[in-house]
Amino acid sequence: MAGNTFGQAFRVTTFGESHGPVVGVIIDGCPSGMEINTELIKHDLSRRRPGQSRLVSQRKELDTFEIIAGVYNGKTTGAPLAVIIPNSDVRPGDYAHLADAFRPSHADYTYFSKYGHRDHRGGGRASARETAARVAAGAIAKSILKKTGTEIKACVSRVGGIITPGDYREWDFSLTEKNEVRCPDNRTAEKMKACIEAARKKGDTVGGVVFCLVSGVPAGWGEPVFDKLHAELAKAMMSIHAAKGFEYGSGFAGSEMTGSEHNDIFYNDGKKIRTRTNFSGGIQGGISNGEDIYFRVAFKPVATLMQKQKTVNAEGKEINLEGKGRHDPCVLPRAVPVVEAMAAIVLADHYLRNKTTRW
Amino acid sequence: MAGNTFGQAFRVTTFGESHGPVVGVIIDGCPSGMEINTELIKHDLSRRRPGQSRLVSQRKELDTFEIIAGVYNGKTTGAPLAVIIPNSDVRPGDYAHLADAFRPSHADYTYFSKYGHRDHRGGGRASARETAARVAAGAIAKSILKKTGTEIKACVSRVGGIITPGDYREWDFSLTEKNEVRCPDNRTAEKMKACIEAARKKGDTVGGVVFCLVSGVPAGWGEPVFDKLHAELAKAMMSIHAAKGFEYGSGFAGSEMTGSEHNDIFYNDGKKIRTRTNFSGGIQGGISNGEDIYFRVAFKPVATLMQKQKTVNAEGKEINLEGKGRHDPCVLPRAVPVVEAMAAIVLADHYLRNKTTRW
Amino acid sequence: MAGNTFGQAFRVTTFGESHGPVVGVIIDGCPSGMEINTELIKHDLSRRRPGQSRLVSQRKELDTFEIIAGVYNGKTTGAPLAVIIPNSDVRPGDYAHLADAFRPSHADYTYFSKYGHRDHRGGGRASARETAARVAAGAIAKSILKKTGTEIKACVSRVGGIITPGDYREWDFSLTEKNEVRCPDNRTAEKMKACIEAARKKGDTVGGVVFCLVSGVPAGWGEPVFDKLHAELAKAMMSIHAAKGFEYGSGFAGSEMTGSEHNDIFYNDGKKIRTRTNFSGGIQGGISNGEDIYFRVAFKPVATLMQKQKTVNAEGKEINLEGKGRHDPCVLPRAVPVVEAMAAIVLADHYLRNKTTRW
Amino acid sequence: MAGNTFGQAFRVTTFGESHGPVVGVIIDGCPSGMEINTELIKHDLSRRRPGQSRLVSQRKELDTFEIIAGVYNGKTTGAPLAVIIPNSDVRPGDYAHLADAFRPSHADYTYFSKYGHRDHRGGGRASARETAARVAAGAIAKSILKKTGTEIKACVSRVGGIITPGDYREWDFSLTEKNEVRCPDNRTAEKMKACIEAARKKGDTVGGVVFCLVSGVPAGWGEPVFDKLHAELAKAMMSIHAAKGFEYGSGFAGSEMTGSEHNDIFYNDGKKIRTRTNFSGGIQGGISNGEDIYFRVAFKPVATLMQKQKTVNAEGKEINLEGKGRHDPCVLPRAVPVVEAMAAIVLADHYLRNKTTRW
Repeated sequence: MAGNTFGQAFRVTTFGESHGPVVGVIIDGCPSGMEINTELIKHDLSRRRPGQSRLVSQRKELDTFEIIAGVYNGKTTGAPLAVIIPNSDVRPGDYAHLADAFRPSHADYTYFSKYGHRDHRGGGRASARETAARVAAGAIAKSILKKTGTEIKACVSRVGGIITPGDYREWDFSLTEKNEVRCPDNRTAEKMKACIEAARKKGDTVGGVVFCLVSGVPAGWGEPVFDKLHAELAKAMMSIHAAKGFEYGSGFAGSEMTGSEHNDIFYNDGKKIRTRTNFSGGIQGGISNGEDIYFRVAFKPVATLMQKQKTVNAEGKEINLEGKGRHDPCVLPRAVPVVEAMAAIVLADHYLRNKTTRW
Repeated sequence: MAGNTFGQAFRVTTFGESHGPVVGVIIDGCPSGMEINTELIKHDLSRRRPGQSRLVSQRKELDTFEIIAGVYNGKTTGAPLAVIIPNSDVRPGDYAHLADAFRPSHADYTYFSKYGHRDHRGGGRASARETAARVAAGAIAKSILKKTGTEIKACVSRVGGIITPGDYREWDFSLTEKNEVRCPDNRTAEKMKACIEAARKKGDTVGGVVFCLVSGVPAGWGEPVFDKLHAELAKAMMSIHAAKGFEYGSGFAGSEMTGSEHNDIFYNDGKKIRTRTNFSGGIQGGISNGEDIYFRVAFKPVATLMQKQKTVNAEGKEINLEGKGRHDPCVLPRAVPVVEAMAAIVLADHYLRNKTTRW
Repeated sequence: MAGNTFGQAFRVTTFGESHGPVVGVIIDGCPSGMEINTELIKHDLSRRRPGQSRLVSQRKELDTFEIIAGVYNGKTTGAPLAVIIPNSDVRPGDYAHLADAFRPSHADYTYFSKYGHRDHRGGGRASARETAARVAAGAIAKSILKKTGTEIKACVSRVGGIITPGDYREWDFSLTEKNEVRCPDNRTAEKMKACIEAARKKGDTVGGVVFCLVSGVPAGWGEPVFDKLHAELAKAMMSIHAAKGFEYGSGFAGSEMTGSEHNDIFYNDGKKIRTRTNFSGGIQGGISNGEDIYFRVAFKPVATLMQKQKTVNAEGKEINLEGKGRHDPCVLPRAVPVVEAMAAIVLADHYLRNKTTRW
Repeated sequence: MAGNTFGQAFRVTTFGESHGPVVGVIIDGCPSGMEINTELIKHDLSRRRPGQSRLVSQRKELDTFEIIAGVYNGKTTGAPLAVIIPNSDVRPGDYAHLADAFRPSHADYTYFSKYGHRDHRGGGRASARETAARVAAGAIAKSILKKTGTEIKACVSRVGGIITPGDYREWDFSLTEKNEVRCPDNRTAEKMKACIEAARKKGDTVGGVVFCLVSGVPAGWGEPVFDKLHAELAKAMMSIHAAKGFEYGSGFAGSEMTGSEHNDIFYNDGKKIRTRTNFSGGIQGGISNGEDIYFRVAFKPVATLMQKQKTVNAEGKEINLEGKGRHDPCVLPRAVPVVEAMAAIVLADHYLRNKTTRW
């Protein structure tokens, strides 16, 4: 009921606050006998980490992690996995001035309204620090998916008004990790960097869009009606901090097309049934059809500004707020591994769920 | 696991196929002692019904319904509610030619891939007929919400390329039910009608966008992390047939803004804490803040065309398909009550879930 | 949350009141492509039916049923199954005198306390009539299990103080359905019948014990910690009307033994690992070990008496109550198929759940 | 699906192995604003701890614990609570001889069958060490219940063949914690001690029964049909290591009574509706009626013996096994706080669930 768990067969529960001792995750339902790829967990955590470039927050999180349950001799035992990621470089003093202020477009006011009191330090449970736990779980989900040939690659397709030109099939995903923005096009990446730098200098922030491609999913994953594969992806993506929109396949643009333009015609390529176009985004009736699954997630500009803002405190008094601490001028580069992680969690769950489908 | 249930405290399970005897819904968790508003159920079902205008399918569904469990002397008893809606005017013969064809951009191929066989008549379980059950459940959810002062009003904000001008605060929602398109602006409604008619004449279809406004939600509904209010709305909306995208508040457009433009500044209006703008769409950190909640859902053009299309059958042989039966040239007008229903189900669930929050 | 659903992968939700139009059940998660054995459903419903002998209630329920969703051409499609069982021979007049009385040891007072009002006719939702829905679901679960070689056989092992002599391995289960008591020993059956008849003549009732044997379950079903196979069986059995106790394997008697007496020694029979004794009841650490699973369920005497009793009404006034209607002097013979059904539901669920265990 | 979570509104997930770094628990759904009673957690952990007397295992677990999430300034924030209990005095060497042996009546063989491999050290996830996590969660559940006036008191009512005489209403629960056996009768306690000592000297073990009394529960807790309060208690109790049976109220003995003996007659005591007897055990139709709730849990004798036993190893070869390490001759005294903890978890969950019952 309380919302800290995601998934049914592959069930992820996160815990921990940004300024408590740890953030962590319990994964129940990870199949037994699977080798834990600690390098992949490390790699994905380092992609999410602040301080990796000038474009993102300069907080120094080490993102070292420890698996404290569920693994024996390097393999999963079938018991719940527990991963903890200690919080280092915590400076609660940075937040002392926020003790009773409601920061604009943060969760301060709503948490206070809901719970009657709150942990104001760095957003507490609402902090994006929580996504480190998701990334750890996502790396484990990726290991499950590997066996099925499923691969997940996300990238930044837009920052502010700057858009990566062309279609995803024309992009070179191998470039994504070669620039600080995680854009699959180097020239666009430069423009995005300039845009982020300009915002940072003004103490301002910019939003953007993450694109995610999932290839190798066989036909048949996803459940009908409420747990459609794209509905679960939508929930997973919208649960990420600062997400404002989700679309898959043709998305919002598809709603401007006619049916005769939009329908994906089936054909037989000699080996299997394919579609000539893929406006469906690899999912029909909520179930994968074997084509690429792709979707986009819109992120708002980060709410913490290094500028003065008016706001209200817990007593309802209007006050002035000045940004302090070390924050991201643009969350997009660091959102890429989080989007991948949540996609992996959804797909691993549906891979397992699908095992019970046929008699 | 199998995806036919939505919600935790207010738990909705639908069942039934388009060409079976009924579609129906079980609602577990409806509070006891609530009067059942059968008029509201009727009203919403009639708004969803085909045949209500020339713009939509001419199938004649009566959408009479029967509550067969959970009500005594007109009030809920706390037992699960069961509502069945008999399928009338079923013409399975209309689908005989589809017995082994995979219709483009339908669920035929994916269901066959997943389950190994399928009920081809009218889409079976994947048919939008299933939404009648959701609408019945939504009407009951609306009754729960009424007590809290929450009101849900959806409308068609775009059809094909035709957009309702202005901001939702300038629209006259009282007009929504006064034109066949369910557009809150009469002049735009005329243009939309023309657009749909034009498509219909060509045997083609058009998509569009439904806008939904939820007013009166107090601060504090929604759960943190995975069950954020907007994440649950996203899943609910994306689970509706033909949905391709979801955005709330500033949405995709918000991702092009800077933080200093996008932040919603808090102020005290003398009675309560408000925000001067509402790019947040009434939800911050996944929890309602007392402002209007609003979101948009993109729908693709209907996949069934009254045109010839190529496709493949279950043997993998390429065949020609010709549209038959009675289908919608545009699903948008009928999607409005479905969007409202799913919003009501999410909100009723979170209203109840929130009751366990404080000690 | 509201308690009308059981199971995770094989998920059963019942609905309907004893004096409403139907009782029914939704089964979500039944694997696709399975033939529906309507004869088995009929057979098990007829074993549960009142009126089958003088030993049980003389109400005449036909227990005809209709599958209104999830089946096409005699096979499951993977969509939720919906089964309804119309209530016939409903005589609400029999209950008019109970409109505001709280019958002793019934659910009248607690339902009223919880919900604020209630459907007094025949117990409403609390009526044992609800078990007809369980039996229908159980018959479908048995069909799933058949493939795995699992067989479930329950019988009446005790009525009042009369006990079936010997160990279950000495009983002849083929006799169970050959006497009205469902006792696997004909001489004991006669004594039990006499005991029930004696109670009936006095307007009194008697309790007893159902024994259940599950054979053919392979090693590995069940989940550790909270969802141990015997813990789920315990919940399933205790959820049956009038159940007061559950024990498996050595049970309460085992708690009087020493470890050296109680331990089941493993040996290798040449084909597989077995245990020489089976005090474990086929389950170790919550997971099946391949031996017979067996357990006992204690049922209290039926609370409805054909005698005068004192009680209190909704106004808190003390009143006299006289039994009317047609009730069971002993519920045990009719509980046998209900115990089997709940066992089948638990086992089918864990069979499916176990499919996701290994990488 | 994987069985490590219990509860719906108050949701407890345990993790960790006996010989890993920690055992721990996540509690999601604990109401916000509640003071954490660390003394109570300490107290209950110390009651569960081995080494507290000669009657139980001499392992030295410190059972120090750390709350690493969900608490700010001593109060719950509404975020998930995470409690870890480091494993100290771990001697994996004690288990080296068990690396491939299947200990009789342990979970070794079934875990191996299910998962394909296992952590043999001390039972791994199947170890009763896991109950420390339950006890911590139970102490928090007790704090929730305190506000409602609910109190839970368990004791040892039987060890081997030695039974505490009289009815629970005649027992002096204040004595329970004053003897090493946790028996509410000092003379019986002495006999039980002697019985346990005798078994210990022979390297043998004994079982017994824990009795649990829950007072102060108002009428109305519990859910109908599958989640009856006693069905949930049954599952909770049977999920405890070594539990073999559960009965509530009159239990198995009640099944030997007639209805006229067994019915609990209602009367009005001037303030509220009560029952003259309480064979119902405080629960009718699955819902509390305001009377004492009481139940019994049977535990088998501990399976680890300090004697030679025959068994089989993972290769299917028959081997001899000799008990080593430090084990409990009788688990009953240490089971008392575990029974209380699981009862508290069930009741806190149903207290919260009941908040959504009425409109």
